Amino acid sequence: MNQYLKMDEWNIIEEGFSEDNNEISEGIFSIGNGYMGQRANFEEKYSGKSLQGSYMAGIYYPDKTRVGWWKNGYPEYFAKVLNSTNWIGIDFSIDGEVLDIASCEVRDFVRTLNMKEGYLHRSFIAKLPSGKEIKVDTKRFVSIAQKEIGAIRYSITPINFHGTLTISPYLDGDIKNRDSNYDEKFWEEVLKKSEAWQASLVVKTKKLDFHVCSSMRYHITQDNKKVDSKAECIEKDKFVGNIVNINVKENEEIVVCKYVSNVTSRDYKVEELEAIAKEALQKAYEKGFEALLKEQSLAWKEKWKESDIVIDGDVSAQQAIRFNIFQLNQTYTGEDDRLNIGPKGFTGEKYGGSTYWDTEAYCLSFYLSTADPKIARNLLIYRYKQLEKAKENARKLGFTKGALYPMVTMNGEECHNEWEITFEEIHRNGAIAYAIYKYVNYSGDKSYLGEYGLDVLVEISRFWEERVNFSKDKGKYVILGVTGPNEYENNVNNNWYTNRIAAWTLEYTIEVIDYLKRKEGKKYLELVEKLGLKEDEVIKWQDIIKNMYYPTDAKMGVFLQQDGYLDKEQILVKELNPEHLPLNQKWSWDRVLRSCFIKQADVLQGLYFLEDKYDFHTIRRNFEFYEPRTVHESSLSPCVHCILAAKLGEQEKAYEMYLRTARLDLDNYNNDTEDGCHITSMAGTWLSIVEGFGGMRVRNGRLTLNPFIPENWRSFSFKVMFRGTLLKVNIKKDKVIITNESKEIITLVVDGDNYTIEGESEVTI
Amino acid sequence: MNQYLKMDEWNIIEEGFSEDNNEISEGIFSIGNGYMGQRANFEEKYSGKSLQGSYMAGIYYPDKTRVGWWKNGYPEYFAKVLNSTNWIGIDFSIDGEVLDIASCEVRDFVRTLNMKEGYLHRSFIAKLPSGKEIKVDTKRFVSIAQKEIGAIRYSITPINFHGTLTISPYLDGDIKNRDSNYDEKFWEEVLKKSEAWQASLVVKTKKLDFHVCSSMRYHITQDNKKVDSKAECIEKDKFVGNIVNINVKENEEIVVCKYVSNVTSRDYKVEELEAIAKEALQKAYEKGFEALLKEQSLAWKEKWKESDIVIDGDVSAQQAIRFNIFQLNQTYTGEDDRLNIGPKGFTGEKYGGSTYWDTEAYCLSFYLSTADPKIARNLLIYRYKQLEKAKENARKLGFTKGALYPMVTMNGEECHNEWEITFEEIHRNGAIAYAIYKYVNYSGDKSYLGEYGLDVLVEISRFWEERVNFSKDKGKYVILGVTGPNEYENNVNNNWYTNRIAAWTLEYTIEVIDYLKRKEGKKYLELVEKLGLKEDEVIKWQDIIKNMYYPTDAKMGVFLQQDGYLDKEQILVKELNPEHLPLNQKWSWDRVLRSCFIKQADVLQGLYFLEDKYDFHTIRRNFEFYEPRTVHESSLSPCVHCILAAKLGEQEKAYEMYLRTARLDLDNYNNDTEDGCHITSMAGTWLSIVEGFGGMRVRNGRLTLNPFIPENWRSFSFKVMFRGTLLKVNIKKDKVIITNESKEIITLVVDGDNYTIEGESEVTI
Repeated sequence: MNQYLKMDEWNIIEEGFSEDNNEISEGIFSIGNGYMGQRANFEEKYSGKSLQGSYMAGIYYPDKTRVGWWKNGYPEYFAKVLNSTNWIGIDFSIDGEVLDIASCEVRDFVRTLNMKEGYLHRSFIAKLPSGKEIKVDTKRFVSIAQKEIGAIRYSITPINFHGTLTISPYLDGDIKNRDSNYDEKFWEEVLKKSEAWQASLVVKTKKLDFHVCSSMRYHITQDNKKVDSKAECIEKDKFVGNIVNINVKENEEIVVCKYVSNVTSRDYKVEELEAIAKEALQKAYEKGFEALLKEQSLAWKEKWKESDIVIDGDVSAQQAIRFNIFQLNQTYTGEDDRLNIGPKGFTGEKYGGSTYWDTEAYCLSFYLSTADPKIARNLLIYRYKQLEKAKENARKLGFTKGALYPMVTMNGEECHNEWEITFEEIHRNGAIAYAIYKYVNYSGDKSYLGEYGLDVLVEISRFWEERVNFSKDKGKYVILGVTGPNEYENNVNNNWYTNRIAAWTLEYTIEVIDYLKRKEGKKYLELVEKLGLKEDEVIKWQDIIKNMYYPTDAKMGVFLQQDGYLDKEQILVKELNPEHLPLNQKWSWDRVLRSCFIKQADVLQGLYFLEDKYDFHTIRRNFEFYEPRTVHESSLSPCVHCILAAKLGEQEKAYEMYLRTARLDLDNYNNDTEDGCHITSMAGTWLSIVEGFGGMRVRNGRLTLNPFIPENWRSFSFKVMFRGTLLKVNIKKDKVIITNESKEIITLVVDGDNYTIEGESEVTI
Repeated sequence: MNQYLKMDEWNIIEEGFSEDNNEISEGIFSIGNGYMGQRANFEEKYSGKSLQGSYMAGIYYPDKTRVGWWKNGYPEYFAKVLNSTNWIGIDFSIDGEVLDIASCEVRDFVRTLNMKEGYLHRSFIAKLPSGKEIKVDTKRFVSIAQKEIGAIRYSITPINFHGTLTISPYLDGDIKNRDSNYDEKFWEEVLKKSEAWQASLVVKTKKLDFHVCSSMRYHITQDNKKVDSKAECIEKDKFVGNIVNINVKENEEIVVCKYVSNVTSRDYKVEELEAIAKEALQKAYEKGFEALLKEQSLAWKEKWKESDIVIDGDVSAQQAIRFNIFQLNQTYTGEDDRLNIGPKGFTGEKYGGSTYWDTEAYCLSFYLSTADPKIARNLLIYRYKQLEKAKENARKLGFTKGALYPMVTMNGEECHNEWEITFEEIHRNGAIAYAIYKYVNYSGDKSYLGEYGLDVLVEISRFWEERVNFSKDKGKYVILGVTGPNEYENNVNNNWYTNRIAAWTLEYTIEVIDYLKRKEGKKYLELVEKLGLKEDEVIKWQDIIKNMYYPTDAKMGVFLQQDGYLDKEQILVKELNPEHLPLNQKWSWDRVLRSCFIKQADVLQGLYFLEDKYDFHTIRRNFEFYEPRTVHESSLSPCVHCILAAKLGEQEKAYEMYLRTARLDLDNYNNDTEDGCHITSMAGTWLSIVEGFGGMRVRNGRLTLNPFIPENWRSFSFKVMFRGTLLKVNIKKDKVIITNESKEIITLVVDGDNYTIEGESEVTI
């Protein structure tokens, strides 16, 4: 926990510079546009603690696996989110003295992330070792209107001297990943060109041949007049730039506007890259910084219109939820169905890979409710496109049929290598099936089932069919050797969640087959042919559904997380010495594994997904049993507890859980934000408000709400798009106002009663 | 499986050179003397597939850990068996053409390991690319009479040419471990000196500062006359040598005798190393090769006198058992209580570390029965000396008391980093306790208990006390989250073997406490004081013994390997497609874990250790249940099955199991001998004959035998030392002849009857 940021409804603000917090701030103040992203590094040289990080979506590196002991079935590589060309760099020196605030006295330092308009702002006054003082004010953003474009306005004003200011804007492709298994560099130079006032650099990855072309142009004004000095070129290995010397004097502002376009071989042919980058750059350059920023601000206004949550009476909560929404929108825009939502987005390198089950289990709902339905659909199609790879993955592990989606992936191939996760956390397959249900249930888009859905469902069901085995001892189907969502247990037998989501997948697959048979007969027959679907498969699935084993404690009336869970010493989290928390930092792994403590919702995750299949008392009993044993050391845990607590009427508990998720990064709750932000868990915060406090569900094709308001909030409102209707739900202490911002009429359910709202009107409940 | 070696009773013989088999042969033909060891590399340059390997006992390197994902509690380093200065090297070239049999036509190649006299012999005729032919004959050994000394006699004879032969004997310390986590070199140069006909080299490890000094002298004869040519010095980084040019002619034999002494800072002060090495070298040099070899032969004769096993009627079995005994004697001599028995001895680098539970569970018996009792005692004292480190290790994992011995160690610190083994294979603690029992029971040396034994037993018992927990659900003590001896299961609950050996440790500790209280009152009181032993500890231990949970299937009357074992699909090994074997190479780790297949004796290991506590039928039921499910993919598995099968009267099965262990390396049964030989499992082969076919046990202080003879053997005999008596047990088809080769009278039990044998006489049964 480290609360050094100022409270503000629309901005994240850091006042005063602290080297110790710098890497945390670099993550938090990151900017991105779904296509590329940039940590909040300084444009000028900085020799202090820093992770310089520029990332291009979908550009990764298959780094040579590093394991202690090889296990058969491990993938050959572990994909790394690839730190690419540093395009923000502008070095400054004054009479030969380099501006590096690590060696300056710094005052009035303010770093601001303007979330409303989507830019990063930083200002400070630096006293150089020589005593010279300068004032700096810099803004930058990556455009969501023109995704290839990044723009920087860097203002520097001498305070107490005149002299020569040397300005050196550059592109540096000689970048090393912090996250690299063998300390290798991953980039090679392809081409570099430098001229006065502009330069281009093409680098490519040593494997997979991803090419990234960055082009820059810049201009400098002095006292608002364009500077026409000589711009010399500098070139080094994978590095191009300019050097400009200017005579400066007190209080005369120098402004450098640097425009960069970054294009990659993911979108264009290698030989076209330079031309395309230059063309995009030219347009941006002509528009100029202010116009680009205006565009940015308008584009963000649109985003906020669809996704904003307003909390009245709690600035801290307001700031937090906007930060989460902002980061989610910066990370994934849904325009490119080859992309997904990396756990750190563009804010850091940790964890590698882009796609975890987080996407389906936590993030999907956010995009479903706050954006064009095709965005959520693209998230699903991403998995559909990777079905063949998921089948290969299952073969690799020895399965003769079915698909096992990877735990972590960039392109559909598994790229994670811990057996207890890679091989055993197979519940991910269930979440991928569940996402299809969630999407169709929310959007009503049943066409998805025949077009894409059934293929995935059938192959996942086939996997489950082979993965279960019939225990003669129990007379039931069992699933042995798994890791559930709770990663503080490995290689357990009959994890309730896994058994349940497996059986549920079979149920839903059969339901979808029946639906297609009834409603889309022709399509159905095509699919039977294409998938080789046999009657006896379905019969086998029904047998598994009927005879699946679920570990249960009849006395307490709770589902058991896995076989033997009750053999553990039963201690509650509140009985632990707080100095022992977080367990994952304070305890040996051995001790963690043997304890009853749960990292994140496991049985409760299942009850959250399948709540309509369980009665209130069952959910309550399980919640009351598991919540006190859960340490929430996964960022994905509190939201599920918040939603269930809200459902159970445990408003205080719900609010407590909300607080743990909402400011996780802003307050560095788990002491790990310097690795980057917990992007996917941010969707959990949104869920906490909308499904938790708002009680939003979709039942029988209708949006339903069961709202309540946390005690110390005056009101809160959120927006949801539901089947073409944009609704604003405003929850006050004494009433709920629902505004239909679209033209279509909608009927929804609030606290069990139906309400019909005409287009562009509202209802107060 | 790869049978390319010739059968012979006393020699291992390879005829004809095969590059493909070379690394396997390098391991099999290794020579060692407990102090140092050398793979069967060639003295001359060889550019083909080879692992050049010279090892000094106890010299290791704490290599930086390599793991995919760090777990709290992992040790900082993984110790590597350290490949050190190549002291065997002698390069040859003829008129500038290098002798390298990788580029020659080779005929009449014979490599022989003479086990009777303890040396390696190699001869061949090589035709160089130029057509020049030479005959080579070379012998070498490391002396067991003077442990620092290695000697080589290299004879080379031109067949069809005259010309200039260049001879270059050297010491090369610029050695890289094949087993290195980050491809680093571990050695630095300290000193090098070269003169004509001699040279010295001191290198030290980059960490821990182990110094190794190697000194060499050599002489050359031509046609039996000493060569007096000029010897030039050559020096390179960590390399010293000489170059001598000689005019040679057809059929005139040149002989190089190279003597080396290797001394280390483990035994001497760094500043003395060079002088001590030179002094030892001088003596050896003065003796000369033939005299040294004579000494070697006599010393081996003594070893064989104590440990030989003679099999009549089965050359293959005879060769195999002698090979195993030879390698065990080469690996560990018991003179240095800081050393232990590395799993690969001096034959390769794999696995790192020197000490596994193999020592206590498999090797101890061999040394107990074939050597001075102080050798077995030293193996025990090794652990006693590391007790404080074992306590630290337990603290590191979060235990407040007790000792957990490391899974793999060089100096008492854990240096293995797989959580499922390092943290969970805690049964090793039980084997270390059991070894104390075994030693005392065999040797009758009860003084060990008060002197060393109780300290270790109490601390291990304290560990078990804290490691169990009381399951309210079961009303019993359970041990959760362990890996049993069967490493094809991880993180299981209530592994029967672990629970049993834990409870047994507590039983035996209490027994020893009672014994000391009764018999060594003063010592006992000192120990109570020293160990802080409390009455209530013993009471708690008794409660655990009484209420320990043992998974059992009542219907079948078998102990269950762990909770849930019967939920697995029950298939027998014989039902598997043989192409799927070995599972650890053919199946994904996931599939291995979920299967019912067992890598090595687990429940049966417990029944082997504690056989006197179980009736015949219980052992039979368990054997019949587990053996058909066991794939024996650990080299430590077949011996236990052989011994139990023999006990159960299953002679065919016992012989089948013996065959799997005896020629494991000679026939490269598991396709992994190129990594080096399975040294510790060789003790299992010895056990198979002595405890299996011989049925040897010690009960009530008496040696007891229940011998049988495999059908296709005519007779076999083994030697055992028992409490000062050397016995030869000769088992023939129709009788057993036991010869007492000592002067003391002994009474022993054969097939249930007592026999008394006077000194230096025999009895026929």
